[in-house]
Amino acid sequence: MAGSTFGTIFKITTWGESHGKGLGVVIDGCPAGLALSEDDIQLFLNRRKPGQSKYTTPRQETDMVEILSGVFEGKTTGTPLSLVVKNKDQRSRDYGEIATCYRPGHADYTFDAKYGFRDYRGGGRSSGRETIGRVAAGAVAVKILNRLGIRLAAYTKSIGPVSIDSSRFDLEECSQNSVNMPDAVAAKKAQAYLDACMAEHNSSGGIVECIVTGMPAGIGDPVFEKLDANLAKAILSIGAVKGFEIGDGFAVAEATGKTNNDSFRRHENGKVKKSTNHAGGILGGISDGSDIILRAAIKPTPSIAAPQQTINQQGEEIEISIKGRHDPVIVPRAVVVIESMAALTILDALLVNMSAKMDSIAKFYHV
Amino acid sequence: MAGSTFGTIFKITTWGESHGKGLGVVIDGCPAGLALSEDDIQLFLNRRKPGQSKYTTPRQETDMVEILSGVFEGKTTGTPLSLVVKNKDQRSRDYGEIATCYRPGHADYTFDAKYGFRDYRGGGRSSGRETIGRVAAGAVAVKILNRLGIRLAAYTKSIGPVSIDSSRFDLEECSQNSVNMPDAVAAKKAQAYLDACMAEHNSSGGIVECIVTGMPAGIGDPVFEKLDANLAKAILSIGAVKGFEIGDGFAVAEATGKTNNDSFRRHENGKVKKSTNHAGGILGGISDGSDIILRAAIKPTPSIAAPQQTINQQGEEIEISIKGRHDPVIVPRAVVVIESMAALTILDALLVNMSAKMDSIAKFYHV
Amino acid sequence: MAGSTFGTIFKITTWGESHGKGLGVVIDGCPAGLALSEDDIQLFLNRRKPGQSKYTTPRQETDMVEILSGVFEGKTTGTPLSLVVKNKDQRSRDYGEIATCYRPGHADYTFDAKYGFRDYRGGGRSSGRETIGRVAAGAVAVKILNRLGIRLAAYTKSIGPVSIDSSRFDLEECSQNSVNMPDAVAAKKAQAYLDACMAEHNSSGGIVECIVTGMPAGIGDPVFEKLDANLAKAILSIGAVKGFEIGDGFAVAEATGKTNNDSFRRHENGKVKKSTNHAGGILGGISDGSDIILRAAIKPTPSIAAPQQTINQQGEEIEISIKGRHDPVIVPRAVVVIESMAALTILDALLVNMSAKMDSIAKFYHV
Amino acid sequence: MAGSTFGTIFKITTWGESHGKGLGVVIDGCPAGLALSEDDIQLFLNRRKPGQSKYTTPRQETDMVEILSGVFEGKTTGTPLSLVVKNKDQRSRDYGEIATCYRPGHADYTFDAKYGFRDYRGGGRSSGRETIGRVAAGAVAVKILNRLGIRLAAYTKSIGPVSIDSSRFDLEECSQNSVNMPDAVAAKKAQAYLDACMAEHNSSGGIVECIVTGMPAGIGDPVFEKLDANLAKAILSIGAVKGFEIGDGFAVAEATGKTNNDSFRRHENGKVKKSTNHAGGILGGISDGSDIILRAAIKPTPSIAAPQQTINQQGEEIEISIKGRHDPVIVPRAVVVIESMAALTILDALLVNMSAKMDSIAKFYHV
Repeated sequence: MAGSTFGTIFKITTWGESHGKGLGVVIDGCPAGLALSEDDIQLFLNRRKPGQSKYTTPRQETDMVEILSGVFEGKTTGTPLSLVVKNKDQRSRDYGEIATCYRPGHADYTFDAKYGFRDYRGGGRSSGRETIGRVAAGAVAVKILNRLGIRLAAYTKSIGPVSIDSSRFDLEECSQNSVNMPDAVAAKKAQAYLDACMAEHNSSGGIVECIVTGMPAGIGDPVFEKLDANLAKAILSIGAVKGFEIGDGFAVAEATGKTNNDSFRRHENGKVKKSTNHAGGILGGISDGSDIILRAAIKPTPSIAAPQQTINQQGEEIEISIKGRHDPVIVPRAVVVIESMAALTILDALLVNMSAKMDSIAKFYHV
Repeated sequence: MAGSTFGTIFKITTWGESHGKGLGVVIDGCPAGLALSEDDIQLFLNRRKPGQSKYTTPRQETDMVEILSGVFEGKTTGTPLSLVVKNKDQRSRDYGEIATCYRPGHADYTFDAKYGFRDYRGGGRSSGRETIGRVAAGAVAVKILNRLGIRLAAYTKSIGPVSIDSSRFDLEECSQNSVNMPDAVAAKKAQAYLDACMAEHNSSGGIVECIVTGMPAGIGDPVFEKLDANLAKAILSIGAVKGFEIGDGFAVAEATGKTNNDSFRRHENGKVKKSTNHAGGILGGISDGSDIILRAAIKPTPSIAAPQQTINQQGEEIEISIKGRHDPVIVPRAVVVIESMAALTILDALLVNMSAKMDSIAKFYHV
Repeated sequence: MAGSTFGTIFKITTWGESHGKGLGVVIDGCPAGLALSEDDIQLFLNRRKPGQSKYTTPRQETDMVEILSGVFEGKTTGTPLSLVVKNKDQRSRDYGEIATCYRPGHADYTFDAKYGFRDYRGGGRSSGRETIGRVAAGAVAVKILNRLGIRLAAYTKSIGPVSIDSSRFDLEECSQNSVNMPDAVAAKKAQAYLDACMAEHNSSGGIVECIVTGMPAGIGDPVFEKLDANLAKAILSIGAVKGFEIGDGFAVAEATGKTNNDSFRRHENGKVKKSTNHAGGILGGISDGSDIILRAAIKPTPSIAAPQQTINQQGEEIEISIKGRHDPVIVPRAVVVIESMAALTILDALLVNMSAKMDSIAKFYHV
Repeated sequence: MAGSTFGTIFKITTWGESHGKGLGVVIDGCPAGLALSEDDIQLFLNRRKPGQSKYTTPRQETDMVEILSGVFEGKTTGTPLSLVVKNKDQRSRDYGEIATCYRPGHADYTFDAKYGFRDYRGGGRSSGRETIGRVAAGAVAVKILNRLGIRLAAYTKSIGPVSIDSSRFDLEECSQNSVNMPDAVAAKKAQAYLDACMAEHNSSGGIVECIVTGMPAGIGDPVFEKLDANLAKAILSIGAVKGFEIGDGFAVAEATGKTNNDSFRRHENGKVKKSTNHAGGILGGISDGSDIILRAAIKPTPSIAAPQQTINQQGEEIEISIKGRHDPVIVPRAVVVIESMAALTILDALLVNMSAKMDSIAKFYHV
């Protein structure tokens, strides 16, 4: 069925395959009057573009976005935005056994099982290039959130066994290294670890963390449209993500009420604050005004050059080794995707929240 | 906005508060011709009923369900099922400072922030009793899944520092101890740990695991309605859940491609199988025919008798200690809720999958 | 599939059958802080209650509504409202051939074709009693709309060949006659026509008109969620409705651009007005600030005492005459149902409209 | 909010403006394995293309469609289809007072009221060109319906006072005249009437009828997703449509139960048939296996050359006469749009219906 649409009011629909003519997204429900240009979006797409370091696929793509509709005289009109990125590197080639075998860790088999056949060129719709539409839409969502005083920062928290150290945390550092880590020392160690993986024709997993600041309290809709529930869906919908945490996450399992409860305190500006933030900014599925903190666990790139056992479509057991160069780690390029999905989720929740109170509605309609 | 509806084809809408007249659920889209009685549903509600051990609240509720519509001559008619559970223990009482203070770890403050005021009686809609509608609907979903050869087993994997040992794993054991653990030895240790928590007016977190067997391959809809994405939303929508994993979950961050990839093999019955199941039964958001394995991290009960710092609605800083007896751990009673939400998600995905292939549609309509 | 939910933000889910235990509705997304009591809702239910004149079924039902959730201290909390009406007249009886034959003009055959069997007691879910949930929810929607300065007036425009005369139009008159006509003279003629129908064991159709005043301009969402498109769906979803018009409706087919275009003029209060209202208050799917005018064509009651040809479930051709007394006309009781569905549609459109402009969103969130 | 998406399982999202870079549609949920080429879609787009007679705008557009995704080796893959039509005739021009005045009968004012400003070039998103996405998607839906043995035929039933005569009804005739009428004699009269309108700088309305044959019984989902309710929404969502009828439509208001009820009879092939079809193929919101018959009332083109009174954005009263040549009647070009929207609605209803019965689901999953 239709699975390529996300959101209730700010609704995006993505399309496109790895080696088709292009990829894109339609953003429907974008409020009118937002200043928007292709540059705003390109900035985000450049953050996920391939070929930027030796840890990313060398595929040559400029990933230039074009806005086909929804903007007039530099501002959004309230009608759908259609954003398109053409594929450049779609030269015909010999896909060889990729066309008929089921690569371990990939969705080849499951697409065949569901649809009867699949577009085997570069993974088709299950390729990481599918996220182009998400990131293009995320750029628009982030621009709106920024206007509302809300900011997102996502970064690599760990790669394999190498984690950032909070004492060295410096967001500016992320753009200075090829692994998107806010810690120069950890970044170097992670690079060394990745070099070792590559030497062994192997790949690595890792963790991305995202922090959202400036959130108003009251966002999220119990009981099924809770803000954390929708963030979980948004993040798990990204390929290769196998786990999601909000606040202390899995650590709460070993915590106690005394240590895990955050005390409410009175902020100097009269607002409510919490003395700690184990909850990660969400209580009962509704934002509490603290920073939202979430994490995603990302599996190692399944495409490795080392030989692997598998079967082909005929059910014959074969050995394959995946040719070409692939990202030895997805984590650094996933950072902007996670930031985008978080932004889309939070923006949609902000918009649906506008009708929560009778008084706000009456005020909106001037009565 | 409307946040109490879940599902696309098999759609549930829950309602009700802790100390209101009752709670319930409307199940819309239930296929016609399913044999269904109140007993089928009561069986599940009894698994979450309070007052069954010293680790659960002693509140007296029979939680008897009544089917108000949608069943005729013992079978579902295809029209909405309305299921209602009346609250018995709704005697008027003095809610004291609960009515005006913000309990740490609870949603008191966020409900006020969103809606302007709240039903403070027992937590209102943010109470654990809200899950009654989920479990009643889950019972119906499980009955349908069983008919399709799919079975779910959820259980307590850990409480605080005490985890089950896979060498002693025995599902039958769950019903023999008060913590829902499939390991008698671990159950005893967990009980001792909980006794210690209670003695200190404290509470504990834990982990629930759920395994789904008999899944056909091909279920789940890329890219946003992936099966794992919807499972994540379903599980995170349950109060107190702070983390979600599928398959190896967060462990993948430290894994490598060589260890994490599952090889495909040929099954004796001609079907595809995998030699391992790090993926937890889902690849590219679509079931691969292996068991689905998921986990949820559950925070310690926020209601503890120990004194805590907080503020009241006037912004005054106060100290409270929460009266009455509360569950020192939510985990054992959350087991059936997690099983229910997993069942609802999987059933809905099975139903929407029926139109994935042109040939299946043509065959369905006999052309 | 799930077909019993209506609305995006203000979302209702109805349930219940003619001779089941009861009927009801869950209203999810109702803004918090609305003063609401059972009396508010009862007022509307009384308008559709049976047994109020010789032109309605003599079935004895008090149709008393109970609010089971979502209201605390006299105000809506923002959580789901569960409203229930118990059936009183559900005595066991001999349904005779009704159980096995397909009544002409009824949904007996189509329910069997879809679901494999049906609840044949009084039409089950296809009974006119199904509208109880709509009217209960409509009462809440109307209360909110009134608070926003929007009022709805629906009435019988015609019964059979008898139409109201605009020169005698008087809304107050509706409650003075048993056919809900705002014209005392036409009402008498209509009653005489209905008496003649009844004498011949026959029934009559008619037209209901609904006028909405006080609408702000700008409501409705192109291109598929246009206000008139959603009104059309809302009205056609009511049993027995076979046609829908907005503004001049079918008369536009014979009109010309010169006569059909409404000129824009400047209103004394600085607002825009139109010199005429052929459009019925909606242009391009968006309200223009004029009155919304819609009409519904309602078919004659299919249950007639006169003998009719049909077949039974075995495919045998038989003759039936439907026993018991039935409404010889549905129109007067459909008036409040149409008003309710129009109110639900318009309210939902008002709520989703709140995020149409970037500036409004920024102002809402105080930035 | 997001209003450009239609459908539940077979879900389309359209985008684009009259004088932007192009228009298009994303079709999500299209079943896999359907043979599909650009020719299939072009056939439908050619039916709505401008410049084909003196009764349509002379705007030069080839309206060539390109499939950007979702098709591999000539078959749909189950992933989203992205269809794009580039605008050719988007030369910069002087929009003059169109940019600042509110044309009568157009959506200029309502777009301004909703969004704060508008894309005034050729009506922007409220242009008739918006229907390109609908028709491109409709072509795909019709291809699937045909595979299932279902066929649609839409045609002009009347233009102004000129109606087709059922005794001369010949579908083949539609393509032989420029007004899409299945009656050569009426077509000539209609053309004469249009010539007279044009001479007076005036325009005409009309009625389109659509007949669907080969429908299985059982399609449509009570109570809000009734087949006729969704058809009404689909048709009213098309610009310029002011009325909708199913079966006898507004004529039922003057009918009686005796004349309006359709008797059920036994068909020679063992199926159920009806002796008449006043219901238009739908009873209780569910198809009954008879032909579905619907009609749409279409208003006269609001763009007329004759001078009209109106106001501009400053609220000044002005007189305008709309320059350029416009369709003196929309009806003939609306035929394929109505056919497309009907096809999209019916296909979606067929797909969601697949899970109506427990037995069908069990059979589908081979248990």
